[in-house]
Amino acid sequence: MPVGTRATVKAMTPEELREAGAQIVLSNTFHLMLRPGDEVIRDLGGLHKFMHWDGPILTDSGGYQVFSLAKLSTITEEGVDFRSPIDGASCFLSPEVAMKVQNHLGADIIMAFDECIPHDCAPEEIKEKSERTLRWLERSKQAHARPGEQWLFGIVQGGTIPELRAWSARRTVEAGLDGYALGGLSVGESKEAMLASVDVAEPLLPANQPRYLMGVGTPRDFIQAIDRGMDMFDCVVPTRDGRNGRLYTSRGALNVRNACYTRDPGPADPECGCPACRHYSLAYLRHLHLNGEILSSRLNTTHNLWFFFRLLRECRAAILERRWTKYRDAALARLASSHKSDG
Amino acid sequence: MPVGTRATVKAMTPEELREAGAQIVLSNTFHLMLRPGDEVIRDLGGLHKFMHWDGPILTDSGGYQVFSLAKLSTITEEGVDFRSPIDGASCFLSPEVAMKVQNHLGADIIMAFDECIPHDCAPEEIKEKSERTLRWLERSKQAHARPGEQWLFGIVQGGTIPELRAWSARRTVEAGLDGYALGGLSVGESKEAMLASVDVAEPLLPANQPRYLMGVGTPRDFIQAIDRGMDMFDCVVPTRDGRNGRLYTSRGALNVRNACYTRDPGPADPECGCPACRHYSLAYLRHLHLNGEILSSRLNTTHNLWFFFRLLRECRAAILERRWTKYRDAALARLASSHKSDG
Repeated sequence: MPVGTRATVKAMTPEELREAGAQIVLSNTFHLMLRPGDEVIRDLGGLHKFMHWDGPILTDSGGYQVFSLAKLSTITEEGVDFRSPIDGASCFLSPEVAMKVQNHLGADIIMAFDECIPHDCAPEEIKEKSERTLRWLERSKQAHARPGEQWLFGIVQGGTIPELRAWSARRTVEAGLDGYALGGLSVGESKEAMLASVDVAEPLLPANQPRYLMGVGTPRDFIQAIDRGMDMFDCVVPTRDGRNGRLYTSRGALNVRNACYTRDPGPADPECGCPACRHYSLAYLRHLHLNGEILSSRLNTTHNLWFFFRLLRECRAAILERRWTKYRDAALARLASSHKSDG
Repeated sequence: MPVGTRATVKAMTPEELREAGAQIVLSNTFHLMLRPGDEVIRDLGGLHKFMHWDGPILTDSGGYQVFSLAKLSTITEEGVDFRSPIDGASCFLSPEVAMKVQNHLGADIIMAFDECIPHDCAPEEIKEKSERTLRWLERSKQAHARPGEQWLFGIVQGGTIPELRAWSARRTVEAGLDGYALGGLSVGESKEAMLASVDVAEPLLPANQPRYLMGVGTPRDFIQAIDRGMDMFDCVVPTRDGRNGRLYTSRGALNVRNACYTRDPGPADPECGCPACRHYSLAYLRHLHLNGEILSSRLNTTHNLWFFFRLLRECRAAILERRWTKYRDAALARLASSHKSDG
């Protein structure tokens, strides 16, 4: 899922997202409740109409943002008091508020309100926060006013402690939800710790329901997570990196600012069929980026999304055609062999 | 001509420009010679290929920018010494350099190197600078290395002093060029003074060659200049105003930041068929702009260009169908009656 924080995937139109291969986009409860306000969006016909995207949308619960972006937040069992990062206004988020907001926005998939756990928490704290997340999950379920229209996903916490992660997964699944997410990962812990947590939780999740690994990731992360049975991802990597001039290509990642591209007449990726690679040279992409041109963000984001969605289509095809292991090994080797790639 | 200063019309792709109605775009000698450099663009196949625009391009001579943007410029008969606004490097522009750069860029129409005259100059100074512009015109003509491939336009100066403007027009036409521009207007003088200068110069320009009024303008300016026989224009108004949230509509200009649009479900202009008006509400346009989203610049620029090109198509049709006077009066009345419009 490309990330459309404020009801727009930065630099892209919905038509371009579709052309790049997007099937679903993510948007943010936290940002939209503050501006323009969830009631405004509801009154305008909901988030799909507001942002002119007729495909599926998933909204996060605001749990992650309220801890990372809000000022002076105070957590109680009831919820989180915080100051708006926009104007300092006093705000409140709780399972009930997060559900109300998400019911107003009207996304196809909504997320239970959870407590995001920093990766360096003490075990006792991880346990407490994971328990609270489970209590908040029950309250989210109760408060969800449109269960027939919007799928509700629960979020497994438990940090990187195997016992807690497994316990959280079991308890979350017991709650009986439409899909399951692994949260509190990709937040600063090592890749090994992240994958180990996925390994612990995965066998405990129903095989016939979506599994969503939140906040992941790079091409290598995708392959390793898909290999462990994950189905859904969201990440700002293709869009944010694109705006910063970092392009993912079949030959590895490159930065368009590099002086070696000053006179390069070739495309960013000769194997790519995206509009940026079809019509523009690396020299032009470099020129646009050095000048801070809006078209730079557009073309780079477009290219990266095409690259990521092609990778995911390849993964899907390899699984369906029962050649996943072979594909995985070749893809990881290709990513490792590229000297430019950080995969 | 929409303005593509650095080989890109800000926020737009060439395909979108075409769809909006653009037939020709303008780009800037001054900016491109500094970055990425005209030889780089020549070696990459020229400006058309570089920016992926296969329609006509006009490049200005750098005369306007070297006086408005360069630091510490020193004008001599030979040319202009200046410091690059990018890195302070010592640079030089002259008729010969401006021609060489424009020959390298390869635009379809190139401009003679002129001395831009501030509107508040003393008459004697206007005369001196206008005379120098004529001497530079001769040198530009001599230095133009691709006369069969690139049209060369001369620039009439003379400030807003009727005798000097007429004299400059006569002398410029005597030089025998492919087209004629009126320069040194739309630089701070009153609208009346600008139109009076157009009135003076126009009868002296050949009827069967393009007349280009540089740096104009708003919808009202266009109608008044077309009424005086002008054929070509360039202006950043639709693009820059768009990025600033100012939209031109059939009901006048509006600013999308206005709080009255917070819940407005309607399009910016019900009479407009552009993608922004077809797919998005004013409420969404306001939301995007308040959040500084790239899509805001895209949609607003798109809308304004559609509006401007529709206006120009209407003008063209009215002239061809011999109903110009009636159309002009109705259009000016419509612009005047709209309380929001500054036309």
